[in-house]
Amino acid sequence: MRQSELFTRTRKEVPKDEVSKNAELLLRAGFVSKEMAGLYSFLPLGLRVLNKVMAIIREEMDSIGGQEMLMTALQDPEKWQKTNRWADESVDVWFRTELKGGSSLGLANTHEEAIAAIAAQYVQSYKDLPFAAYQFQTKFRNEHRAKSGILRTREFIMKDLYSFAKSQEELDAFYDKAAAAYKRIFERAGLGGTTYMTFASGGAFSKYSHEFQTICDAGEDIIYISEEKGIAVNKEVYTDEVLADLGLKREDLRETKSIEVGNIFKLGTRFSEPLGLMFKDETGKPQPVIMGSYGIGPARLMGTIVETLSDEHGLVWPASVAPFAVHLVAVGEEPQVKERAEELYKDLMDSGVDVLYDDRDLRAGEKFADSDLLGIPWRLVVSARNMAAGTLELKERKTGTTESVNESEILNSSVMEKFKAN
Amino acid sequence: MRQSELFTRTRKEVPKDEVSKNAELLLRAGFVSKEMAGLYSFLPLGLRVLNKVMAIIREEMDSIGGQEMLMTALQDPEKWQKTNRWADESVDVWFRTELKGGSSLGLANTHEEAIAAIAAQYVQSYKDLPFAAYQFQTKFRNEHRAKSGILRTREFIMKDLYSFAKSQEELDAFYDKAAAAYKRIFERAGLGGTTYMTFASGGAFSKYSHEFQTICDAGEDIIYISEEKGIAVNKEVYTDEVLADLGLKREDLRETKSIEVGNIFKLGTRFSEPLGLMFKDETGKPQPVIMGSYGIGPARLMGTIVETLSDEHGLVWPASVAPFAVHLVAVGEEPQVKERAEELYKDLMDSGVDVLYDDRDLRAGEKFADSDLLGIPWRLVVSARNMAAGTLELKERKTGTTESVNESEILNSSVMEKFKAN
Repeated sequence: MRQSELFTRTRKEVPKDEVSKNAELLLRAGFVSKEMAGLYSFLPLGLRVLNKVMAIIREEMDSIGGQEMLMTALQDPEKWQKTNRWADESVDVWFRTELKGGSSLGLANTHEEAIAAIAAQYVQSYKDLPFAAYQFQTKFRNEHRAKSGILRTREFIMKDLYSFAKSQEELDAFYDKAAAAYKRIFERAGLGGTTYMTFASGGAFSKYSHEFQTICDAGEDIIYISEEKGIAVNKEVYTDEVLADLGLKREDLRETKSIEVGNIFKLGTRFSEPLGLMFKDETGKPQPVIMGSYGIGPARLMGTIVETLSDEHGLVWPASVAPFAVHLVAVGEEPQVKERAEELYKDLMDSGVDVLYDDRDLRAGEKFADSDLLGIPWRLVVSARNMAAGTLELKERKTGTTESVNESEILNSSVMEKFKAN
Repeated sequence: MRQSELFTRTRKEVPKDEVSKNAELLLRAGFVSKEMAGLYSFLPLGLRVLNKVMAIIREEMDSIGGQEMLMTALQDPEKWQKTNRWADESVDVWFRTELKGGSSLGLANTHEEAIAAIAAQYVQSYKDLPFAAYQFQTKFRNEHRAKSGILRTREFIMKDLYSFAKSQEELDAFYDKAAAAYKRIFERAGLGGTTYMTFASGGAFSKYSHEFQTICDAGEDIIYISEEKGIAVNKEVYTDEVLADLGLKREDLRETKSIEVGNIFKLGTRFSEPLGLMFKDETGKPQPVIMGSYGIGPARLMGTIVETLSDEHGLVWPASVAPFAVHLVAVGEEPQVKERAEELYKDLMDSGVDVLYDDRDLRAGEKFADSDLLGIPWRLVVSARNMAAGTLELKERKTGTTESVNESEILNSSVMEKFKAN
């Protein structure tokens, strides 16, 4: 894409009430726009990142057999009354609204009730189990405070997967597969080294649930990490009893702030029983289906990447989620520079490389500052000086390392491989 | 995908309050689930169709330079007060909700205000124009009645594109490009022959707006078609004056019911002025940006396909939006049938064909009835009888035409081309 055609631009100022680092950088770079506190629109560059994050998640959910669907945001209170989650006393983040006739509706903050009711239409016998279904759908949560940028918003897309099993063993087997898929997601998104599967409080049906927590000072959680075992414990269950159960010792654990980037939970029959999601077992006896739920907020994941990987010059995107693979920057007014840059833009695109081409009439310094702020993994500079030497300048955003590449070699395999890591 | 793993199934019964043909068929085939009146969830097969419809729309919007973004569903009343569209007297489909502190929010029924406010952050000079931006985002409309299945729902994804120009000519030029893109969308979705660009009432800034109307008895609109000119006139502007203006005569027009599958509208400065979306012209003088808006509801388009192309046996999907290209059906209990079908399933998938493989243990009659109901363009039957003759039976859903294909030729080019029309 030509940067001159992109309708957003970088800017120096951000809204005065903005206190979070992720929102500040994303706003300055033109990736998001602030609608109100806790409400951000995704502009073209930001949506490209969000879509890449969602594509990684989708691939991993498909790989464990998840069937994608899309439930409604508007919710029938009746189902929520059956599980005792309609009243403010049990769920205090409801946004409520009303039909013309005056009857109440809820804006979905999660979809356990909805999916259980849908599954109940289709599950009859043990032969219909197990299966898993998921969606990317907007959740609405009436947060009291929303000061963490895109980490905690009042409206956000969530990937929520639900599993349906006929036995605890079947649930456990899927739960482990989902945990492994989650690990792959965070690795692929560039957070593998700083994200820990974390023991958290369970419920009536399991001793623990698990969170995926990424080490970050901007996080709202506190966890205790065992580097040796590669796991962590959430503060809420950081007790002698739990530590003994997990074979952990306080002295081996490191306390840190963290962001919850995902969670997985064994629901048991908490939702299937009240919503009538039953199956007939091999003897013909009705049994409640055993459920699990598995959530990731793609925008929170994106915000966590910003919080943990950015530097003093701006955003730094891992290739897997970067809005473009290469930022091609033409420097100088000379016609031969423009011409060469145009040629290169075309050649790179023809080779299947995602390029943002800075074809604007701006000073080199401004272009370079913008490029650093946008955080595209590779910057390729065409200038008169380079052209005279028959080279192009290639800079890696993450390390700042610069190298000269022979013009003739730019489309060769060694350079192209870097670009295609995207 | 193996049909035995799909969690949905076909069924005979639909909710008693369901009166629309599209919802009845989609519910029976397991493409959607009814949450409440006017609220449908998209199940795996239905979401596959919806995603294909959206992919066509996205390609065409990208082809005219649209930049994709994603705005929020929750809306700040302040912006809507500036354009006088917050009160029920002006817009009567609002769903409203409240923040914890008690302040009102709206659920977006459209996004002109939101996009104008975002654009105002970036547009400064005539050099920043023209451009166009679009999104696929959920709209919420508090409809009094919702009895048309997925044609008119209280919550639906909409593709809304907005154009921004510095002159009427620039708006007109983009408007024509958008109209051409819309035509291509309806053609690609299989509705080209029955969809007419229709003159409808304009506003303060243009004599007419244009709707794209598909001939259909289930439609809520009435239009008058000129077959000769390939255009139509909406009843709301069907006056002597308008007909004279368009060079049409009553006796040449045919009255029909129709569904509005898209609309394009010249907004002028209706939103840019109240929301401060201004640019400096070449003399440095501030001018309001001239806007246009262009909407398509992918689910309504999907519902229109169902209403107009289905037959007495069930759904009939054009290849371009079908959930799968081929329905592979194994008939009979013989081990060699299963074996051959498994082989074929693998071969087709390896060749890049989207296959739904009916591997269930059901009678042939049930499988065929299901296959007709699901409406996948091609049905490929493996049975002992066919195998003895060294053939497979290939049936085209739309025409019902059946042919015998030599087993050895199934992966050859002539047959594969049919499957790849998808």
